[in-house]
Parts: sequence; structure tokens; C-alpha cells
Amino acid sequence: MPALGEIATALDLELRGDPARLIDALAPLEKASSETLTFVSEKRHLSKLSQTQAGAVILHPDWVEQWSGCALLSEAPYVAYAKATQLFDNHPGATGLVHERAMVSEKAQLGHDVTIDAGACIEENVSLGDRVWIGAGAFVGQGALIGDDTVIKPGAVICHAVKIGARCTIHPNATIGADGFGFAPDQDGWVKIQQLASVDIGNDVEVGANSTVDRGALEDTVIEDGVIIDNLVQVGHGVHIGTRTAIAAQVGISGGTQIGARCSIAGQAGLAGHLTIADDVHIGGQGRVASSVTEAGHYSSGTPVQPLRAWLRSASRFTQLDKIVRRLVALEKAAGVEQGGDQDA
Amino acid sequence: MPALGEIATALDLELRGDPARLIDALAPLEKASSETLTFVSEKRHLSKLSQTQAGAVILHPDWVEQWSGCALLSEAPYVAYAKATQLFDNHPGATGLVHERAMVSEKAQLGHDVTIDAGACIEENVSLGDRVWIGAGAFVGQGALIGDDTVIKPGAVICHAVKIGARCTIHPNATIGADGFGFAPDQDGWVKIQQLASVDIGNDVEVGANSTVDRGALEDTVIEDGVIIDNLVQVGHGVHIGTRTAIAAQVGISGGTQIGARCSIAGQAGLAGHLTIADDVHIGGQGRVASSVTEAGHYSSGTPVQPLRAWLRSASRFTQLDKIVRRLVALEKAAGVEQGGDQDA
Amino acid sequence: MPALGEIATALDLELRGDPARLIDALAPLEKASSETLTFVSEKRHLSKLSQTQAGAVILHPDWVEQWSGCALLSEAPYVAYAKATQLFDNHPGATGLVHERAMVSEKAQLGHDVTIDAGACIEENVSLGDRVWIGAGAFVGQGALIGDDTVIKPGAVICHAVKIGARCTIHPNATIGADGFGFAPDQDGWVKIQQLASVDIGNDVEVGANSTVDRGALEDTVIEDGVIIDNLVQVGHGVHIGTRTAIAAQVGISGGTQIGARCSIAGQAGLAGHLTIADDVHIGGQGRVASSVTEAGHYSSGTPVQPLRAWLRSASRFTQLDKIVRRLVALEKAAGVEQGGDQDA
Repeated sequence: MPALGEIATALDLELRGDPARLIDALAPLEKASSETLTFVSEKRHLSKLSQTQAGAVILHPDWVEQWSGCALLSEAPYVAYAKATQLFDNHPGATGLVHERAMVSEKAQLGHDVTIDAGACIEENVSLGDRVWIGAGAFVGQGALIGDDTVIKPGAVICHAVKIGARCTIHPNATIGADGFGFAPDQDGWVKIQQLASVDIGNDVEVGANSTVDRGALEDTVIEDGVIIDNLVQVGHGVHIGTRTAIAAQVGISGGTQIGARCSIAGQAGLAGHLTIADDVHIGGQGRVASSVTEAGHYSSGTPVQPLRAWLRSASRFTQLDKIVRRLVALEKAAGVEQGGDQDA
Repeated sequence: MPALGEIATALDLELRGDPARLIDALAPLEKASSETLTFVSEKRHLSKLSQTQAGAVILHPDWVEQWSGCALLSEAPYVAYAKATQLFDNHPGATGLVHERAMVSEKAQLGHDVTIDAGACIEENVSLGDRVWIGAGAFVGQGALIGDDTVIKPGAVICHAVKIGARCTIHPNATIGADGFGFAPDQDGWVKIQQLASVDIGNDVEVGANSTVDRGALEDTVIEDGVIIDNLVQVGHGVHIGTRTAIAAQVGISGGTQIGARCSIAGQAGLAGHLTIADDVHIGGQGRVASSVTEAGHYSSGTPVQPLRAWLRSASRFTQLDKIVRRLVALEKAAGVEQGGDQDA
Repeated sequence: MPALGEIATALDLELRGDPARLIDALAPLEKASSETLTFVSEKRHLSKLSQTQAGAVILHPDWVEQWSGCALLSEAPYVAYAKATQLFDNHPGATGLVHERAMVSEKAQLGHDVTIDAGACIEENVSLGDRVWIGAGAFVGQGALIGDDTVIKPGAVICHAVKIGARCTIHPNATIGADGFGFAPDQDGWVKIQQLASVDIGNDVEVGANSTVDRGALEDTVIEDGVIIDNLVQVGHGVHIGTRTAIAAQVGISGGTQIGARCSIAGQAGLAGHLTIADDVHIGGQGRVASSVTEAGHYSSGTPVQPLRAWLRSASRFTQLDKIVRRLVALEKAAGVEQGGDQDA
């Protein structure tokens, strides 16, 4: 249980109040007790400060008047909160040991202080950097390269020749480097296109649980430094994702699509193949991206939920839209009203 | 091969016909033979009774005139059918043994008659209730608690400190308790928000194959008693799902969203984060839920499939809808027609 | 490094140019060097030939005038390219050995030259055909039948009694034969419908990484010969997929739906339950298929991405469509304009 002053020092934040106050946990504003630290990251939550029992609050210096208790002042309170969670991290640590029930090829190269848990399988010519941690039952195929401090969680499968940089986390049951979906149609059925290239993941990347990143056919699938990918995401073969882009759960990115830097793709959005998405593009949830996006900005598609009967009417009218517009045009002609220059509508 | 009378007794149903008739399987109406039991759960299927060869039929007492053969009468024929499937269950049973190739920490606590299959890994301070069954290659992380009679299927990953109640089934390759998707944007990239809380699953819950339920950042992700979750579902961190709610395949629920009791969410629907969904809400397939739903009822979104060319016209018109309405307003003005009080359209 | 003449022979293609030219890899047109073979499969890419450095090109005989270098001529250049990738395949091969850390029941039947890698678990009464390869940590449950030359990749789970034909590939972390999502609603909650049937997969089928194919309740889930399924796909219980149909990533097919032969279902499309989809039907990405499709052809649904503000207006108008049409009808009446026979719009 650290003292507030220690936390301020560790996070390099200005402290207002008693440095000796003991803090035993982080908590949300609504549930904070006198032994917990909380935070306000957005102005609209400031009103909740009057209700909180928190022992201390991380907040912006501009907002300090609104709170009379102990405070840690940060120009970026959400980042400060993120760093505070790291001080209170309670995940089990690595043992630094290769478990006797791990299967490690004699031809694998292991760095210092590598942890390999029970049931993991490390094939020949694999190279694991220093402090790499391979979880229970995970698989690392022939010739794969894993950088320093990267963690491969239980059940994840890293296929042959995949490259993963330093400080990455591949979450449980993710699959990196399975074959891309490539087949040529022949009279007798589909002919498999062997996927000859691999996956190249940079540093500081997270890939969520049960996500899949396919290996390329002729060119590697590339994920640049600092990209974060949530659960159940599909990254097709030959996709390129630029640095710091964030991909939410269940997004699908079809083969060959190139995504810029600092983009965000919200949950369940789908991108067709061979598109180019510019830097700083933000796609809304379930977005249906069927063509390239060349300008930064926010984009969305889809329709809002409605009560069922109302929706049935809307959906039915949607299928008649072209007829509806033609009726409008007929009326405009009859009325002698100009169409305002929108000739195609 | 039980006799029909035994089935009637086991299901506590009234039997009409020969109790000695032998039944060797359940079958759908269309394929039933004289040795099989079938059922009619909806009135609209009654007409098929004239064609069936079934040895016996589960049906509602009101419908008994429509069928002259052996019958098991139930006020809830579909429930009776469900219970009948349990009499004919053919899944392999648990051995009650800890396999010599399972890896079980000496610091794990095991109840009576626990089964742990080959390659499973049970870490320290795990507690397994009576008759728990951990499948081959499954992982149960430090400090996880698993209640009586719960089954963790092969390849499933239960992360540290996750709590799962009694009589649950976690299907193969599901991941419970991986990190929620929490990062704060800093100048130098994303700062990881350590996910300090866990997952708390009640009794009688099913989680489908390859589904993911993330651990919370500051508060547990909670799944209440009797919830059923299909395959490839994403449950974000801090989500709360009320009792008996049913979640179909590939649904995504973003972080912090609270779902009431007895809801149903159809396949591929997506819920944005930090929403509140009332009890008894039913969301249609691919529903796009971007704001809270405060009233019980059925809701839907999206558009129906059309032949490609027709759809291209509808989709194009959709993007022009605002212009189209403005043209309508101009016409209305020109014609001197009132807008019927709908001022915003 | 084969000579071009050897490649021509292996692929049974006409060669124009030097048969002794050495080829060390396949490459895309834009990146091909003088030691690499490339291909042109569509007319619109012919213009890139003037830029390529390729040592040889696979192309259609009709296009041969457009390229003065070495060429392999094929009526189906994309299929020829696919077959060429197989010549250059660099995937690790099977060892033909049962690893000492595999767990194989004494009651399992193994064909010739079977490979079972470390940590895999083969239960009793399993039958593995000749040259079957079970990857590390994969699971094959009681009574499952796996045909000759089929590969089950690491982490895949094949549940009890599942049948898989010859020459199939089940990619990592896929789950075949988990319980279908069947429950009957009772006063006290959901009653489990035991899934008594299984999964029956034909020959030459691929199932992608982390995909799920559920076992049937009373009738098998059936996937016919030559079907290809991408990653993270959900195939519900009792679904039937006809021969050579292609299913892209994250598609969901609800229980009982019957899909014809030679269909293609693009990414993230969703099919409701108990539908019938004819042969040669093609569904676009995110297609929302809520009713049966009886005619071959291309179908689509959804709306295109727009810049956020424009989309908000379109989406809002969508919910008002029925009112909008009623206003149009009122105007038509006022103007005395006929509706052109479309009485319901």
C-alpha cells in the first residue's frame, strides 16, 4: 500500500495534500473510498466530485478549484490514470523458468530470463528475445522470431516464420500467421494459393484474444509499431496497418488493404480488400468501408435501431428509394420546380 | 433403448398409448421412424403430423386430436423436448481422474471427483469445486475459482482471478478474463491501462466456443445466473449482463455497457460502450445499438438484402436523403401543402 | 531454385523464352526482380508489364504481345499462379512421427505415416487416416474420424464423433463440433437442448483460424466437398453448405440454414436461421440475409460510409422514411399526379 507521495513521485505529478496518505487501490469516482485513488479525465464528470469519497483524485490543474481533497495534478489526467494502473498492476509475474513440461526444440534460441510455461511448444529455429514469456499451451512455429519482453499468452498460436517485435502482447487463443484466404477458381474446384510470405509485427503491439492475423501470399502482412488490436479481429493477408492505429473488437480487414497511421476503427466495422485508408481516419461501429478513404476525418455508415414495427417500415422504404425519388422528380416537373442543380437525384 | 413409459415418467408427462414401445432416438418430424420420438412445439407444424412415421410425439394437450399415435402431452412441448434430449445425451462423460499429463499446481484446491484431462494446466491458488471437469489443454490461471459441476472444455483459457459459478459450461477455445481494451493516448503512443479487476460469472451460464469475456479495469465484468452466450461473442470490460439474457453468435458488447435481464441479442448485433439496456429488450440481427434502450420491446436496424443493382440504387439514394427531403419541403411550400406537424423533416 | 523450363513442365504450360533461366521466388508484378516469376490474371493489370523487372510472367496467350520477356502461357493465369505457389511452398512439413509428448489413446486407430505433434490429445475410438497431421496442442475427441491427408493445425479442437474427410485443413484454434446454441425457455430459466448429432465435413475443405462449426441437435451440420471457410466464421447447428461454396471471414450462419453449391458469402454477412439459399448466390459484405434467396445472382444490403455529419443526416432521415413517403403521397394527391401503379409506396 503506497503513500500518495510515492505515487506522485512515480508518476511525476504535482501533489496537493498529505503525501503520507495511504492508498490501497484505484477506483471509479462513484465507488471510491478514502483509501482509494480516482481520476477525472473529462470536464463533464467534474460534477461527480461533490459525491465521491475518494482519498485522492487525479485531475487537471484547471479543475483544482472544484475539489478540496488530496489531488494529483496532470495536464493529461487520463494518461496519468493509465500510468497509475501500472503501479497497482496485479497480474501474475513471469517465473523466468522453462517448465519441465514445455516442449522446446534444441534448435531454438532463447534469450536471458525467458519464461516458457507448461505445455507450450517452441519449434526449431525459433528465436526468443530476453525476458520473453510464452504462456501455457502456446505454440511458436519453426523459425518465428519474438522480440525482447514480448508476452505470448496461453493458447496463442504463432505460426512458422512470423516476426513479432519487442514489448508486444499476444492475448490468449489469438492466431498469428495462419494461411491467408487465397484460392483460385478452377473447373474442378478451388485451387489453394500457398501463402508464401509471413507476418511482420513491430514493437509495442497488442493483439487481442482470439484475433487472427493471416500470413501474406507473396508479401508479408505488416503491423507497425504501437498498433493496438482488440479481440476477435480479422486481419487478412497482405494488410498493412500504420503506427498507433487502434482496431476495436470484431473488425474485419480484408486482404491487401493498407491502413494509415493513428486511425481508429470501431467495433464490427468491415473493410473490403485492396483499399487504401489515409492517416487519421476514424471509422464508426459496423462501418461498411467498400472503397478507399483518402482524407482524414470521421466516417460512419449503417442505420440506427428503431422499435421493430417502425424499423420494418423504414427498411421497406429503403428498398423503394429509387422509385420514391423518381416520383419526386415527376412532381417537380409537374410543379415546374427547379431541382437545385442536383441532377442525379 | 428406453420404453416410452420410462420416458414419460422421467419427464413427468402424461402418456397416451403403449408404455412398452421402445424408443431408440429423438428425430425431427420429417425424419422420424417408428423407433423414434419427435415433437411439435408450434401450431404451424401440426400439419406435418399426417406425414410423420414417428413412434411417438411430444405435443400440447390441445393438439392431441390431430395425432392418433402414441403421444406425450406437455403444456410446454419445446421444454419437454429439451428435457428429452438430456435423456438421450451421448456426450462422453467425465472420468473423475486427474490425467498424469495434466499440470496441476500443488497449491491448487480440488473438490471431489474432479476431472482434469491431458495437457490441462491448473495454476496455483486455483479452486475447483466438486465434479468440475477441465478439458484437454485448457488453462486455469492463478487464483481462479470454478464452482461445482462446471465444465471447462478443451483449449479454453480462464485467466487469473476469474470467478465462475456452478453448473457452467465454457466451450472450447473461449477466453475468459483476458485484458480489456484500455489504452490512453499519449504523445508517444498508447499507454496501457492495466486491467486490475476480473470477471465474475454466475451459475448456470454457458459461454460459446471462441468467445471472449474481458476482465474489467477497475470493476469486474459480470455475467449473472442463467445467461447463455453463443460462439465468437465479444463481452468488453466492465460489461454487466442480467440474468437469463441470451446473446447469439458474433455479438459485440463494448466496455461498460449494462444489459438487463431476460434480453435477447441476435447474431452480429453490436452495442456501443457505456449504454444501459433495460430488461426484456430484444435486438434483431446485426442491430446497431449506439444509445441506451430504456423500454422493453423489440428493436432492429439495418437494411434488407436486395439484388445488387437495385441495392446500389437504394444505397446511393440513402446518402442523398437529406437533399431529397429538402426538395420535398420545397415542393410542399410551392404547393402550399402543410407538413403535418413534422417540422424537422 | 528451379529453372523456368522445369516450372513450365510442372504446371503443364507453354513456355516462351529461356528454359534455363533460374527462378528463386514468386513476386507481385510491382516487386518482381529478374530472378522471380510473376503473373497477370486480369486485363486491367497489363499496363503494369511495362514497369516490371520480372524474370518471367504467367499470362494469357491473348496478351502475349504486351510482354517481350519470358512467359508461361495459360488460359487461366490465376489458376496457373495458384499452382505455381504450390511449387514454391515453404511451409514446414510433417515429421511422420508421433511425438513422445502427444497423448494418444490406445484405443485410437492410426493410419500410415501419421504425424502427431507435442501436446496433442487423441481420445479413444478416434480414427486417423493415412498421413494425417495433428498439430501441437490440438484435440481430437472420442470417436472422431479424420480422413487421409487432412491436417489439424495447432490448438484446433475437434469434438467427439465429428467426421472430417480427406485432404482438409482445419486451421489453428478452430473449434469443430462444439454444442449448437439450443435452449428452451422455461419459467425457471433456459433448459439445455443436448446436441445429439454431429458435424460431417467432406473432402478438400478448409476451415479458417478461430472459426466455429457447431454440432447439430438432431441432424448433423454438413459441409460438402470443396467448401472453403475463412477465419472467425460461425456455422450454426444443422447448417448445410453445398459444394465449393466460399465463406469469407466473420460470416455468421444461423442454425438450420441450407446454403447451395458454388455460393460466395462476403465478409461479416449474416444469415438468419432456417433459410434456404439457392446455388450460385453471392452475398456482399455485411449482407443482412433475413429470408430465403431462391434465385442465383448477386445480392447486397447496408449503406455506404459517409463523412460523419452527412451520415448522421442520412441515418436520421432513414428513420423518417415512412413519414416522408406519406408526405410525397399527399403532394401527389394535391397535384393530381398518378403514382405509376406503385400503390404501396
